[in-house]
Amino acid sequence: MPLIVTGTIGIDTIETPFGKAEQVLGGSCTYFAAAASFFAPVRMVAAVGGDFDAHTRSTLARFPNVCVQGLETRADSKTFAWGGKYLDNWNTRETIFTELGVLAEAPPLTPEDYRDSKYVFLANSHPAVQRDLLGGFPDRAIAVADTMDLWIDTARDELLTLLKEVDGVVLNDQEAAQLTGHQNPLTAGKAILELGPTFAVIKKGEHGCLLVHREGNAALPAYPTETVNDPTGAGDSFGGGMMGHIARVHSDQHFGDDPVTFEMIRQGLAFGTIIASFTVEAFSLERLASLTPEELNERLDEFKAMVRLD
Amino acid sequence: MPLIVTGTIGIDTIETPFGKAEQVLGGSCTYFAAAASFFAPVRMVAAVGGDFDAHTRSTLARFPNVCVQGLETRADSKTFAWGGKYLDNWNTRETIFTELGVLAEAPPLTPEDYRDSKYVFLANSHPAVQRDLLGGFPDRAIAVADTMDLWIDTARDELLTLLKEVDGVVLNDQEAAQLTGHQNPLTAGKAILELGPTFAVIKKGEHGCLLVHREGNAALPAYPTETVNDPTGAGDSFGGGMMGHIARVHSDQHFGDDPVTFEMIRQGLAFGTIIASFTVEAFSLERLASLTPEELNERLDEFKAMVRLD
Repeated sequence: MPLIVTGTIGIDTIETPFGKAEQVLGGSCTYFAAAASFFAPVRMVAAVGGDFDAHTRSTLARFPNVCVQGLETRADSKTFAWGGKYLDNWNTRETIFTELGVLAEAPPLTPEDYRDSKYVFLANSHPAVQRDLLGGFPDRAIAVADTMDLWIDTARDELLTLLKEVDGVVLNDQEAAQLTGHQNPLTAGKAILELGPTFAVIKKGEHGCLLVHREGNAALPAYPTETVNDPTGAGDSFGGGMMGHIARVHSDQHFGDDPVTFEMIRQGLAFGTIIASFTVEAFSLERLASLTPEELNERLDEFKAMVRLD
Repeated sequence: MPLIVTGTIGIDTIETPFGKAEQVLGGSCTYFAAAASFFAPVRMVAAVGGDFDAHTRSTLARFPNVCVQGLETRADSKTFAWGGKYLDNWNTRETIFTELGVLAEAPPLTPEDYRDSKYVFLANSHPAVQRDLLGGFPDRAIAVADTMDLWIDTARDELLTLLKEVDGVVLNDQEAAQLTGHQNPLTAGKAILELGPTFAVIKKGEHGCLLVHREGNAALPAYPTETVNDPTGAGDSFGGGMMGHIARVHSDQHFGDDPVTFEMIRQGLAFGTIIASFTVEAFSLERLASLTPEELNERLDEFKAMVRLD
């Protein structure tokens, strides 16, 4: 059963200490889908404008496991565009411009064929839109949402309503602190569970991730790498790797109403970690587009050996 | 064969967001020895003054696996004293006062009985003193040094000389960047190996640790905890847990000139991580002094489960 992701598709212009990429494919939905497609078939629900040209579209086509039937093209609108600049330490990102385009219009429609989706990821967008989309998947086995500082700040009530309806939430450490008022990631994670979800995954970028789940906790370091050329999309790729693993292993091993287990989510952290470590090696989707299953498995094995304890 | 540690014993006055402790036992050598003593017998070489009273001494005596034959008491001198204050985010530490006392005098003498020590840890002190002490252990199987920003800044040449003679170095991420000029911990670790050591352990506090070794790399998260009352000594405890494990496993499994392996060091990271997670739960040595082997093993097992990948 396929995984479905809803979120943004963007045209990014990115400057890092190592270079600049103009008008390249980006967006939360895009990075998630590309990453997840290494593990499971992925459906995407998103809207783009008439400016979403054949060249940009061809980048998406490099991920054959991504179904674009739910990609809605609005000829008279513009694709969401974002310009960002990373400073020397990577930890500070400046937004240079944001052109909402289709994001300021009605949300994309979910194709009727997609209603049977079992694994649902609501990539970052307005929590009210996320909630509307969630209602379209009545047979879901798991629903996980991402969010961002903007919505925590400006749409807190809608976000709190959404959190009561999802199984899990994925967000970074600063967002977890902003949402809960707790700087300690473990305390923040526990506070998120009080808001409804069964689990929270707190992403710490180069410092790894923490899973706080009703049945236990887990933590992993990031894959240590010297090759960081563009961190854009790392968090969305992490979500894609994690959910892709969950969709694959739950489909393979479980039937009917068997729940997604703590263990499936926990193991998913490693897949998210490794796929994200490839994403940051190049601008846009370039590294994921050239990634082979052999390279992926080799790094996964290396990572497992790095954290293995007797 | 016992482990030996040389470094400072201090009388600390510490203020944290959770309280204040006045004139309590501290120092790099002390935290290291207490932590390591859970895994192997530890010898300590350090000096204290006439003000090192029976009460403070009794705290040391709570670690029966620590041999204090090498603890030199100088009746007419004063023990090294340090006052520090942690700010709200734990990452900023202000030094309130430093009274060098015996640290401004000649280094402690190593007892003749200690010359056969095989596992040597040079806890943080002036690199020239560390190097002098190192010469007293001709039969060593492994020598590891810690250092700090002060020596990287003021005694770089002596530090570079020391690095050519030790097998490993343990330091935090900021110190690694200061020593090598590289912010990326993996790049910094590799640059340290160019300076002589076979391995570098880069401590990242709440973000875990990275091992860069000629034979491979390893990484672990910190043990996620909400109970941080005083971070003083966490890094020294980490070193103690790591070296204690190395001493125990090398003594048990190896004879003669068998080298300490990458794998022994790699596994040692977990022991360092867990013992440090106890140290920060209370001021001074209090938590380590009350720690039972059962509590230690329980948390080790929990940690292994948290990072285990199929």
